[in-house]
Amino acid sequence: MRATTNVRSSATREAILDAAERLFAERGLATVSNRQVSEAAGQGNNAAVGYHFGTKTDLVRAIVHRHSGPVAQRRRELVARIDSSEDPRDWISCWVRPTTEHLESLGAPTWYARFAAQVMADPVFRDVVLTESLSDPVLTQILEGLNRCIPPMPVEVRLGRNYMTRQLVVNTLADCERVLAAGRPAPWASWEKASHALVDALVGLWLASITPLPS
Amino acid sequence: MRATTNVRSSATREAILDAAERLFAERGLATVSNRQVSEAAGQGNNAAVGYHFGTKTDLVRAIVHRHSGPVAQRRRELVARIDSSEDPRDWISCWVRPTTEHLESLGAPTWYARFAAQVMADPVFRDVVLTESLSDPVLTQILEGLNRCIPPMPVEVRLGRNYMTRQLVVNTLADCERVLAAGRPAPWASWEKASHALVDALVGLWLASITPLPS
Repeated sequence: MRATTNVRSSATREAILDAAERLFAERGLATVSNRQVSEAAGQGNNAAVGYHFGTKTDLVRAIVHRHSGPVAQRRRELVARIDSSEDPRDWISCWVRPTTEHLESLGAPTWYARFAAQVMADPVFRDVVLTESLSDPVLTQILEGLNRCIPPMPVEVRLGRNYMTRQLVVNTLADCERVLAAGRPAPWASWEKASHALVDALVGLWLASITPLPS
Repeated sequence: MRATTNVRSSATREAILDAAERLFAERGLATVSNRQVSEAAGQGNNAAVGYHFGTKTDLVRAIVHRHSGPVAQRRRELVARIDSSEDPRDWISCWVRPTTEHLESLGAPTWYARFAAQVMADPVFRDVVLTESLSDPVLTQILEGLNRCIPPMPVEVRLGRNYMTRQLVVNTLADCERVLAAGRPAPWASWEKASHALVDALVGLWLASITPLPS
């Protein structure tokens, strides 16, 4: 009996996470209530989100958590494969490809990229993602690898480009997901093409000349 | 009497816009209700937002509208000044500086950049901003000017880098506003420094090599 209850509870949690991710992506974190998520997940009880997850923040954290594990696993594998490469493109690929390959593996359509961009822009929810994702020590390894193969630059330029990369990856992937969901062929017809275009652009961003501020 | 009523109504609208922009930036579009905005604007009537603006979408549109005019005006002035420059940096500056100079002119602290990033990530509200801002013909002029002074590239690469630029500007300015609001000195200690670093990075992004997709 106990096992059956756990299986049923786990299926309910999955149904809620699926419904929430989709509704947040399509209608917005700002508009969708826990009650609407419970209904869309086919729960007779409108308080199901509260019962299974707690607050909206807890629900957001659970959605992020469901994806951050597989992405971190792919990142570790990719970094292990490039070892001590001296090509900045390899290190930048480790920043982009784990997420696009994960999204690709989910099959079409996906909702997570649009959800993640909203979370990253929100003053409260963004800390949930940052805590969940930036704690991965492999990210530090990627930054160090990248630093070894680009010209030296002032520490604040490096930090600024780090911030820009984070934003560009999250938000371009959201744009790509919107394009794919709408069935538009341009600018990116697949996750692989978006990933490749993004890596090209980021290599340019990191190698960009640093000009003096006009006095 | 009529004039006095109009002045009072206009002051109320301004108070509501100020309160909404600040609350959305600091607590999030997802969390703040029209009722909380009315209260924060010092309105005894909790339905003041509805009375003066309508829905939350109408309120968002009004906030965007308050800033898009001055930004578009600065953009026109800047484009007129660079005329037919053949330096990509000049055209990219026209993309970044009108907004940073506008934010600078508002005095510290500002909230609009954090608000705008949330709006751009939201599936419903983003159309409000895009309709409001992309209708400016000067933006087409900037893209054409930029195209004239960068190496030729496939149309989908150009469109992709256009999307990336839009996202990078909106979201890096939100990051900069967060850094300034927190009083942190790095990576950017002023709008001018952020603007300069962003233009450097975007020049690199637009001039980045276009590599073939591995077969």
